[in-house]
Amino acid sequence: MKSLKLTTLVAATAVTLSAISLPAFAADRVYKLKMAETWSSNFPIFGDAPRNMARIADEMSNGRLKITIDSANKHKAPLGVFDMVRSGQYDMGHSASYYWKGKVPNTLYFTTMPFGMITPEQYGWFYYGGGMDLMQKVYKPFGLLSFPGGNTGNQMGGWFQKEINSLDDLKGLKMRIPGFAGEVLAKLGAKPTNIASGELYTALERRTIDALEWVGPSLDLRMGFHKIAPYYYTGWHEPATELQFLVNERTWKKLPDDLREILRTSMKLASYDMYIQSYHESAENWATMKTEYPNVQVKTFPKDVLVAMRKANQELLDEKAAEDPLAKEILDSQADYLKKVRVWTNISDRAYLDSVDSLAE
Amino acid sequence: MKSLKLTTLVAATAVTLSAISLPAFAADRVYKLKMAETWSSNFPIFGDAPRNMARIADEMSNGRLKITIDSANKHKAPLGVFDMVRSGQYDMGHSASYYWKGKVPNTLYFTTMPFGMITPEQYGWFYYGGGMDLMQKVYKPFGLLSFPGGNTGNQMGGWFQKEINSLDDLKGLKMRIPGFAGEVLAKLGAKPTNIASGELYTALERRTIDALEWVGPSLDLRMGFHKIAPYYYTGWHEPATELQFLVNERTWKKLPDDLREILRTSMKLASYDMYIQSYHESAENWATMKTEYPNVQVKTFPKDVLVAMRKANQELLDEKAAEDPLAKEILDSQADYLKKVRVWTNISDRAYLDSVDSLAE
Repeated sequence: MKSLKLTTLVAATAVTLSAISLPAFAADRVYKLKMAETWSSNFPIFGDAPRNMARIADEMSNGRLKITIDSANKHKAPLGVFDMVRSGQYDMGHSASYYWKGKVPNTLYFTTMPFGMITPEQYGWFYYGGGMDLMQKVYKPFGLLSFPGGNTGNQMGGWFQKEINSLDDLKGLKMRIPGFAGEVLAKLGAKPTNIASGELYTALERRTIDALEWVGPSLDLRMGFHKIAPYYYTGWHEPATELQFLVNERTWKKLPDDLREILRTSMKLASYDMYIQSYHESAENWATMKTEYPNVQVKTFPKDVLVAMRKANQELLDEKAAEDPLAKEILDSQADYLKKVRVWTNISDRAYLDSVDSLAE
Repeated sequence: MKSLKLTTLVAATAVTLSAISLPAFAADRVYKLKMAETWSSNFPIFGDAPRNMARIADEMSNGRLKITIDSANKHKAPLGVFDMVRSGQYDMGHSASYYWKGKVPNTLYFTTMPFGMITPEQYGWFYYGGGMDLMQKVYKPFGLLSFPGGNTGNQMGGWFQKEINSLDDLKGLKMRIPGFAGEVLAKLGAKPTNIASGELYTALERRTIDALEWVGPSLDLRMGFHKIAPYYYTGWHEPATELQFLVNERTWKKLPDDLREILRTSMKLASYDMYIQSYHESAENWATMKTEYPNVQVKTFPKDVLVAMRKANQELLDEKAAEDPLAKEILDSQADYLKKVRVWTNISDRAYLDSVDSLAE
């Protein structure tokens, strides 16, 4: 490379310019995008995903695509990301689709659903089962594109100050639990709410809430919840929580083709990577829990509570489908896919795990 | 952008050239890499992974990174990919690490291991548990870099012309089964061999072999094996088969930083994508099997056969570790990681799947 002469290259460039040329010009322009994330600054794993995305986009574009990220501490609107990206105040966002269900009900279905798909099943639905198209159909009227933004893996059922021994214990329970799971619990008499990550600990400590679910061992233990709510329940409600990259459509359209592909690829890779990072961190943190947090009591909801949750869940799904044709289209697509893919999960990974366990001495 | 004048841009380019300039020159050069794949042409899923990789690398680099792929039909050496990339005859390869165990024994451990990790666990080990470093340690002496190349998910145990009812049925059984699983079966009296994909059907049809394992429903049904070997066994031996991208180190070093990052990202994304594609295709194909291939008989190996396989597996692992310090380092790393991560798999996805099933009416 070093032996090439400058004059030759300048001449070659000039020829290109006089031929088709415009893509070549774009190569010299730096595109600076601003992203708002729902999370507080230095938030582990969730905050790593957009930063990893921005870093590889920068490196692959040789510095032509620069994405800066504002945390909730700066923009002060953790649950205002949808609006800020829609208005163009930010080019991009990193958040979770189900946070917008109060604004656009059908955004609810693109994060995770109670009793729904596990992570590889849900990625199958997004990328090969029609999920991405349905998600764009929901977001397009708002001038937004939505992409998977990183998966937490199967989430734990949350931290409780009191044990849940029966359906009665759910009555009046004030719990931070977003998405559809909150609606399910509301139907069973609980009082669900959503609170952004930065305020969770204080809300639980001050008894503004009696319980909360956040993620799982990958993140929960460092949040300190075990100090104020010792019962840690296994999961039912978020088997595959997928975060979200939001992009303003005007920003998307103004990017040259190569940078658009770099952005798409960086988002997709960062989301898969977060799934694996979460899996790893969950394993690591779970392993230390027994020794470092001996007061945590791991519990499973009683079967009659789970049966009631599942029934309430199905009734709510049926209501949603009856109210809105697009909701029905999405829910039918998920149900059909789940039915098909779960058979494979059961004959492959689940049968394998069962079989390995049965051989243990 | 269209309002910019050509003369201004040519001048701007010239200024850049006279300033620091070399990275700018690299931006105008096209890097053409040649890749050899182990698979025959038009091979589904396995062949999609390198092509998806090449396509996104091309798009992200605006045509500056061009990767052409030769199938086994062309280079005639499906199991010669390691040597051809090592010698520089090809810049890259797409294959599977355990195919090289006869040449470099420690390459065996970077595909999948019997009774070992499932796919998200193994990606955790590769990217966060030290697996990538160990893999590079094995490949570096040969001037090669190895990267994950796409996961098939949990594989089926294979197609058999006769049922396996006891350990006696394994004695003398001629089976196509590569990797460590072949060694396990050999210890139990079978005669394992490896045969490249293009020759599998003929070998089974002509009774050169009595049985074979290939992948799972994602690929096996279209290969037609069910026509000549009706017994289809569930898996034990390849819980997370990861294919491989090989890169000649000289090629890697001569790429400019941005293209090297584009190549790294394209390979990583294509490998994750193949996992999800395989999961999807397995679910789709499994769903049609019952109606379209009613003669397929799905079987599970008897427990005493599985117990003997597991025992033989552990004895062989202990032998490998005793023979070679690097093998011991790799195997210890895998065993430690598996022990930790499986606890999380069991409390999360497995417990969730069990619980959902227990509620079914």
